[in-house]
This record gives sequence, C-alpha cells and structure tokens, in this order.
Amino acid sequence: MNIGFIGLGIMGKPMAGHLIAGGHTAHLYSRSGVAQELLDAGGKSCTSPAEVAQNADVIFIMVPDTPDVEKVLFGKNGVAEGLGADKGAGKIVVDMSSISPIETKVFAARINEFKCDYIDAPVSGGEVGAKNAALTIMCGGPEAAFEKVKPLFELMGKNITLVGGNGDGQTCKVCNQIIVALNIEAVGEALLFASKAGADPARVRQALMGGFANSRILEVHGERMVKRTFNPGFRIELHQKDLNLALSGARAMGISLPNTATAQELFNSCAAHGGKAWDHSAMVRALEFMANHEVAK
Amino acid sequence: MNIGFIGLGIMGKPMAGHLIAGGHTAHLYSRSGVAQELLDAGGKSCTSPAEVAQNADVIFIMVPDTPDVEKVLFGKNGVAEGLGADKGAGKIVVDMSSISPIETKVFAARINEFKCDYIDAPVSGGEVGAKNAALTIMCGGPEAAFEKVKPLFELMGKNITLVGGNGDGQTCKVCNQIIVALNIEAVGEALLFASKAGADPARVRQALMGGFANSRILEVHGERMVKRTFNPGFRIELHQKDLNLALSGARAMGISLPNTATAQELFNSCAAHGGKAWDHSAMVRALEFMANHEVAK
Repeated sequence: MNIGFIGLGIMGKPMAGHLIAGGHTAHLYSRSGVAQELLDAGGKSCTSPAEVAQNADVIFIMVPDTPDVEKVLFGKNGVAEGLGADKGAGKIVVDMSSISPIETKVFAARINEFKCDYIDAPVSGGEVGAKNAALTIMCGGPEAAFEKVKPLFELMGKNITLVGGNGDGQTCKVCNQIIVALNIEAVGEALLFASKAGADPARVRQALMGGFANSRILEVHGERMVKRTFNPGFRIELHQKDLNLALSGARAMGISLPNTATAQELFNSCAAHGGKAWDHSAMVRALEFMANHEVAK
Repeated sequence: MNIGFIGLGIMGKPMAGHLIAGGHTAHLYSRSGVAQELLDAGGKSCTSPAEVAQNADVIFIMVPDTPDVEKVLFGKNGVAEGLGADKGAGKIVVDMSSISPIETKVFAARINEFKCDYIDAPVSGGEVGAKNAALTIMCGGPEAAFEKVKPLFELMGKNITLVGGNGDGQTCKVCNQIIVALNIEAVGEALLFASKAGADPARVRQALMGGFANSRILEVHGERMVKRTFNPGFRIELHQKDLNLALSGARAMGISLPNTATAQELFNSCAAHGGKAWDHSAMVRALEFMANHEVAK
C-alpha cells in the first residue's frame, strides 16, 4: 500500500520503519529531513506534507502538539492542499500525535470535507514501545476506516482499540495521562509517608503489590522511586503538555480535576528545580522538596 | 494453642472462627458479648480482656480505632492487667486493628515491659476477605515472634508480609489506604473527563486496562463507577478514618500529602450528601457534584 508518514522524530522514525519493513511504499516528510536509514530501507522523501498526501492512500502524522498538527494539515503546502490537488476522496488521514480532543473534532470535520476519513490514534508506550512495535493505540473514527488501517497499526503496536468516534482516541489518551500522573502522585505520597515514618519503602512497596493498591505504576515507577533512577523514560515536560490538555479541556467543558491540577503543580516544581527532562516518576521529588525528606537515599 | 481474640465484630468474628476451626482453643471477649455460633464451635467466653490475656499465649485484637486499642490494652481489666497478674512473659499481643502507626510504637513499648512481644498486623480485604480467610496482612514486629504467629495468620489470610519493626505494619496499611483513595480519585477524574468529552467511559476504561494506567482500582472500582454500583463494599466513613491517620501522621511528621487531603475533602463532600455509608468508589460522585455531570446514567 502507498502510505505516508509526516513527522519522523523519536517516535515517528521507528514507526515509519516498521511500516516500510511490513512491505509498504512509504512517502516521508519531516521538517528536519528524512533519515538516510529510512531512505536506505526504501522510503521515498517528499518536499512537503502536500506531496505526501498526493502520493499516499493512508497518511500518518506524528508531531508534537496541536498547532503542529494544524500546520501539517492546513498550513501552506499542507495535507489538505495535497488532498485537494489530487481529488483525494477515499484517503485516510491518521493523526497519531497526542493533541487536543476538542481541536481533533474540528480537524476531522475539515478533512471530511475532502471526502476523506480521519482517525485520531494517539499512542502510549514511548520510545521503547515505538522501537519494539509494542505501542498501545487508542483510536477514534469511523469503524470502516479503522478496519482498513488496523493491519498498519498492527505493524506498530499491540493493544489497539477503537474507543469511539473522532476525538475519542485523544480523549482516551488524556484519560491515560491523568491516571498515570495521579497514580505516580499516589505512590509518591505513600512511599514518602512510609519513609518518614521509618519503614523501608522497598518492603512497603512489595507488601502493597499483593493487594488492592497494586498498579502498573506501583510496579514500575514505585521501583524507580525506591532506586532513585529518574533518567527518562518519559520526560516531565511531555507529561506537563498532556496535563495541560486535561486541565484546559476540563475548564472548557465545565468540570473540575483537582488532583490533576495539583499533579501539574508538582511537575512545575520539578521543572523549577531544573527537572523538566527528569522521568515523570520524579514527581515524588516535588513532594520531597515540600517535606525536606527523601523517600530513599 | 491457647489463643485469645478481643473484638468480634464484622471482621473479628469470622477471623476468630477460622482460628477455632484450625484446632485452637480460643478465649474470646467482645464488648457486646460472644456470638453463640463461636461458643458452639468451641470458643470460650471471657468477661474481660484481662481474662483473655491470662488464658491465652497469643492475644489478637480487632477493634475499630486507636482509642479502642488503648482501652483494650491499658484500660481497667485490660490486657496489661492480665499479663501482669499472670507474669505473662513470652506471650504475644497481636493488634490487627487499623490504627495510628505512631501510637502503635508506644503501645508496643509498653507491652514489651511485660516481657511480651507485640505485633501490629492490620489487614486489607474487608468483610469478604475475612470470611474467605483471604486477608492481606501487613506486619510490624520482631521476626521471631512473627514466625511463631505466622501459622495462625495463615488461617486468616493469604498475602502475609513482615514489613519491619513495630509500627511498620500500620504504616504500610496507611500507605495502602492512601494509594487506594488516590487511585479511586484518579479513575474518577479520568472517567468524568471521558464522559463529559462525549466518549463512552466503559470503552475508555477497557482501552486503558491494556496499558500503563492499569490498576486493581481501575479494574474493580472503574467498573463500579461505570455501572453506578455504590453499595458497600468498603464504607466511605471507614476510609475517612484511615485518611485521617494519614493526614494527622503527615502533620506530626512534617510532610505534605496534597492529594490525600483533597481526597479526604471529596469523601467529606460525599458525607455531606448523605453518603458516609456509600462504597468508597462513590468518591467520583463528589467530582460529579462539582461538575454537575455524571460519569454514567
């Protein structure tokens, strides 16, 4: 199949590589140029998102934030220009970036005007998941389009779910980031309490893993807190971007997310201490700054 | 073995029953009298905690709160009087109530003066866990005493951990209750966000269970929130007691638990709406009150 891939950074590059390895003809565009490795594997370099859209039937996007997606889609030489030039009816635009669920619905409607389908398909699993083709992919869009793209998703990920219509994939990703942040915060408060009370946080974590307090975060990030391994992983500055989507979405929709707000402030405190590139599990450090006590030495 | 059991309520009664069924001679005391069922099974009724302590080598306590334990141990006709009268050296006092870790260290030191060991061994798993002998038991105390009592714990529970010295079992239980409360809050914020954004919270929960946001709480209480089944389970008023231990402990020790504080306020909001006996997963309702939007109808 002729596929397109726009955005070939830490995530996009290995993802595009998996699609090429799966036997597809990949039309590639990245602001900073296309890596030689992808060209050697058979990828074709394009000079703009418009050129990608003209040549591909399924166009993947993997860029940092909402304005980046908007520019790739509707900016000068953007995807929309390519779809228009090509009478691109029947093509599918798949945005795998993590961006605003609200803007996503607007973008989808504008792409639909070209008689093209739109799928929002943000991922979790990070760089490791991208390299190992083990991403979790949360999708929103029409079921027929999803079924067409699913074999391509399966080259990049494992847990692939159609959550609902356009925007619902992004909503699900925001929910994921809320829970991950708040579960990190929960483990941080608990292990700080344990340590200050004189208990061994490693043994407390072990005991808790057998019961109702268990979570993937207790398993993975609880261990990071105990061992003080705060090299990323997933950088605090990226999680701050995601929680901003949660908090601005909450304000726009009329709901209150009190603990997400606090978690964001704790990330802000880490950043204030020079930690925007720490792993997000280092949120516990912000609790430690307040208490002047470390979970473990 | 001659064992004692003081406090035969919803939790204590089935726990004592398992010890009797295990072939032990049980000396029993409860403020409200001993159930006929336990006497029929072979339990022996005592008129005071002192009498229990005189007759038993291992004395279990399962009462509601810190002042109750203090009264059972050191009040008139309390355990300490029985230990003193009997030259009780070598006996073991096992407090399975969920109480203050700080007071527990004081109680243990006072019991040690009688040349008796003390083990704090709070549980999680609730009424169902007590009835099915499937409690998680988090222990603090000397290893030799723990090994002596372990076969008795195994009649009542499954995950049995010696976390550390006296108080560390209670500390671990407080940590458990912090994480459980904050993971409930996390799932509540996420599912409220999903629902208000127009996504199906049931499908969002399903998608998230495959990834890094997964937890026992997402599995069990996420389903409760989606299905609106808020009958207990574990009553909010009991979790309020446990978070009070966390927050008063934090203040005494000099740490800050911002999200535990908010979770307690959300429980307070539920109680203000008549919900102190709702299941603790109903914390999501407090978020819904603020937003005037329900996760699911």
